[in-house]
Amino acid sequence: MTFAATILTLYPEMFPGPLGVSLAGRAMAEGRWACETVQIRDFAEDRHRTVDDTPAGGGAGMVLKCDVLARALDSAPVAGRPILAMTPRGKPITQARIRELASGPGVIILCGRFEGFDERLFEARPEIEQVSLADIVLSGGEMAALTILDACIRLLPGVMGAASSGDEESFEQSLLEYPHYTRPQEWEGRTIPEVLRSGDHAKIAAWRKARSEEDTRSRRPDLWERYEGARVQPASGARRKDKEPDQ
Amino acid sequence: MTFAATILTLYPEMFPGPLGVSLAGRAMAEGRWACETVQIRDFAEDRHRTVDDTPAGGGAGMVLKCDVLARALDSAPVAGRPILAMTPRGKPITQARIRELASGPGVIILCGRFEGFDERLFEARPEIEQVSLADIVLSGGEMAALTILDACIRLLPGVMGAASSGDEESFEQSLLEYPHYTRPQEWEGRTIPEVLRSGDHAKIAAWRKARSEEDTRSRRPDLWERYEGARVQPASGARRKDKEPDQ
Repeated sequence: MTFAATILTLYPEMFPGPLGVSLAGRAMAEGRWACETVQIRDFAEDRHRTVDDTPAGGGAGMVLKCDVLARALDSAPVAGRPILAMTPRGKPITQARIRELASGPGVIILCGRFEGFDERLFEARPEIEQVSLADIVLSGGEMAALTILDACIRLLPGVMGAASSGDEESFEQSLLEYPHYTRPQEWEGRTIPEVLRSGDHAKIAAWRKARSEEDTRSRRPDLWERYEGARVQPASGARRKDKEPDQ
Repeated sequence: MTFAATILTLYPEMFPGPLGVSLAGRAMAEGRWACETVQIRDFAEDRHRTVDDTPAGGGAGMVLKCDVLARALDSAPVAGRPILAMTPRGKPITQARIRELASGPGVIILCGRFEGFDERLFEARPEIEQVSLADIVLSGGEMAALTILDACIRLLPGVMGAASSGDEESFEQSLLEYPHYTRPQEWEGRTIPEVLRSGDHAKIAAWRKARSEEDTRSRRPDLWERYEGARVQPASGARRKDKEPDQ
């Protein structure tokens, strides 16, 4: 089955872009995924092909018009595919959601530009999932769409082989992955940790688990808290209650 | 001054890619930023130009060799630029860090592939900042590098004009931005909120602030907690203490 991506954008020339080479490029050539773009501007109805207008209530920038966006979106065959709109106001993407997307028929991604979308689009099309890639502001949704597609494509059957099934990767169990080492044995006076050269699989697994936990705790207290919460159910409930903002 | 990006990658053909068009493309043509790539493979020293090897201790995938990476990195003129390595084990990127990067001379970005970097690279080159874009696993650091550059470029002087100075955007004050509306006045039976058409600037500002806070609280409790913590200093200290994982 081909994972079918449809991207609604003002810059169709950005796709597949970097996804046309390397791993994703090979997977595309093999028919494992396909990328179709829809030029939002084609759905403007005035002779200037206007897609945006000034924000109601004033302020800098331009807002994408809901009527044009809805026409563009309604033109794309859904075929059971989730519809994502990339926006910093959305829900942060997770590896769990990427896995769900990758196991489905594909995805429709709506890329914003300028100040964003007229909010009525989301009120009138509640099936649209508002998704945020990171807590940074981009010039548009295109780079975020490319990144999300990259994360999906590597999980498609046959793309990475055994490596992609690895549930030891970062975020797969709410933990960061343990650090890696490879040859040379010694480099700039630094050696590969002894345990990794022991051949003792149980000891290696224990060391990796410990490093995974240690690095998550020190680098990502947010992930660590979730991990601890999932392990100790009652404590987690109590802690979550403590965290509720005082209002 | 030109913001100088140097990207160390196994896929130099991915750059500038989507950053060669639209806003970033124009800014590049105007000399506001420049993008140079370094092919990591050029720093392999064997006749097969090997850049990776199997992980010490076993496991799937391949690990990028520290000796090759260090030679590639040491070849790039630092010139006061921060060195970022894109890795899911890194510190999540923030809009505050993007602003710092954009106000500096540029950035050097090291893109991983496969299972990641030999950890000794970071031990031996502590100036490398390990950065994560999002809690998802990518096929490599290239898409993350493009995204971070996009976020920086829009902030460079002259690129977006007044719009980029807007500190009302999402994350600029630990809050999501308020929703936007634009013409038509009525669409599919939905109208622009009355207050935005009132012309009363104080009322509009109050409504936007309230929506910003409301949406952050309901959509991003994590951001909301940080925002509340920053507003009420003593309470924040107490709350942070409560959150420390029990060990």
